[in-house]
Amino acid sequence: MSSELVLTVYDWVPEPPRGLVRDLRVRWALEEAALPYRIETTPFRDRGPEHLAHQPFAQVPWLTDGELSIFESGAILLHLGELSETLMPRDPKSRTEVINWLFAALNSVEMAGLPWGLIAWAGEPEKSTEWPRFDGFLKSRLDRLEPVLAARAWLVGDFSIADLIMADVLRFPDRFGGLAGHPAAQAYLARATARPAFAKAYADQMAFYAAAD
Amino acid sequence: MSSELVLTVYDWVPEPPRGLVRDLRVRWALEEAALPYRIETTPFRDRGPEHLAHQPFAQVPWLTDGELSIFESGAILLHLGELSETLMPRDPKSRTEVINWLFAALNSVEMAGLPWGLIAWAGEPEKSTEWPRFDGFLKSRLDRLEPVLAARAWLVGDFSIADLIMADVLRFPDRFGGLAGHPAAQAYLARATARPAFAKAYADQMAFYAAAD
Repeated sequence: MSSELVLTVYDWVPEPPRGLVRDLRVRWALEEAALPYRIETTPFRDRGPEHLAHQPFAQVPWLTDGELSIFESGAILLHLGELSETLMPRDPKSRTEVINWLFAALNSVEMAGLPWGLIAWAGEPEKSTEWPRFDGFLKSRLDRLEPVLAARAWLVGDFSIADLIMADVLRFPDRFGGLAGHPAAQAYLARATARPAFAKAYADQMAFYAAAD
Repeated sequence: MSSELVLTVYDWVPEPPRGLVRDLRVRWALEEAALPYRIETTPFRDRGPEHLAHQPFAQVPWLTDGELSIFESGAILLHLGELSETLMPRDPKSRTEVINWLFAALNSVEMAGLPWGLIAWAGEPEKSTEWPRFDGFLKSRLDRLEPVLAARAWLVGDFSIADLIMADVLRFPDRFGGLAGHPAAQAYLARATARPAFAKAYADQMAFYAAAD
């Protein structure tokens, strides 16, 4: 059904983003589904035409599956979901809900969490003129997510790519205390990252970049 | 193949977001594909449990197709793409590329364009401590997009949901001059919004909210 899966990541990254580089999402999904894959690398410091041919924004990761080359973590997760029922249920209603939440994680939650996290990461957010705007934006999304996460273990039935991506986009603001006041989101994130497949993916990414130092 | 498509939008919105509310993306796609649909409304001022059952973030739009209820404009466009070859090609390689760009528009380009646009919309961005960060973020993405858009009329072969969403996410920063210095992006946006289906969708949204005043 699937050719060999090859995941391309940077050959090295500096310390700060380790554990957050987006190949983590894909490693996690591959581990959850027990899909065999191989890692290839592209230079972090020299992003040339071959890199741009696979990832036009000069980011990572991308995944190849035979003649298909897939970039954007959301697109890769959707592709892996098509390959594995462990990652995405097959009945049309559940499948639709998983895809709804996949986009929601990326475009409604990460859309608010990323600018918040960038300002927080830079330090002294209280001195930023934009803090009220982006802090309010993130809170407005977490306030809506909270009752959903309080009412169920996973977003759609069993654990799926919807949870994998939602948990991963929550990790960035959580690094700077952004989930404070949202205990259901904190518990959900703890539940997701306690999964052996996350631990394996995280350890693999950290070990990979440590070995490249 | 498809049941009746019902698109739910707010019953009214204030003046400023008119022409930008996200049901525009869906109206545009429905017009491109000449898919019949019906509009229903949900109260803008009172977002209750029925609204949240369809759209957990209390936003619009959502689309129902028989027993399926789809929220997030990206998920809706993907669903419509599955219904219409006009919106998404069928051969696996082109289909994969369209889906790559669908996610890229939402998670790489809108991710940079939205915070930029929010700061610009608030006025006096040069007084914002975050302007250099988010202006640089948007430029970094537009700089990568520029050679892609300069080299082809549409992202993947003929016009598809990839172009529809990419053009629509560019409209928000463009409103505040954010595409200055990126002539290929400006020309691409002009090309996309010159399509009769965009004009119809835009006029329909404006007329709908004007009638609700």
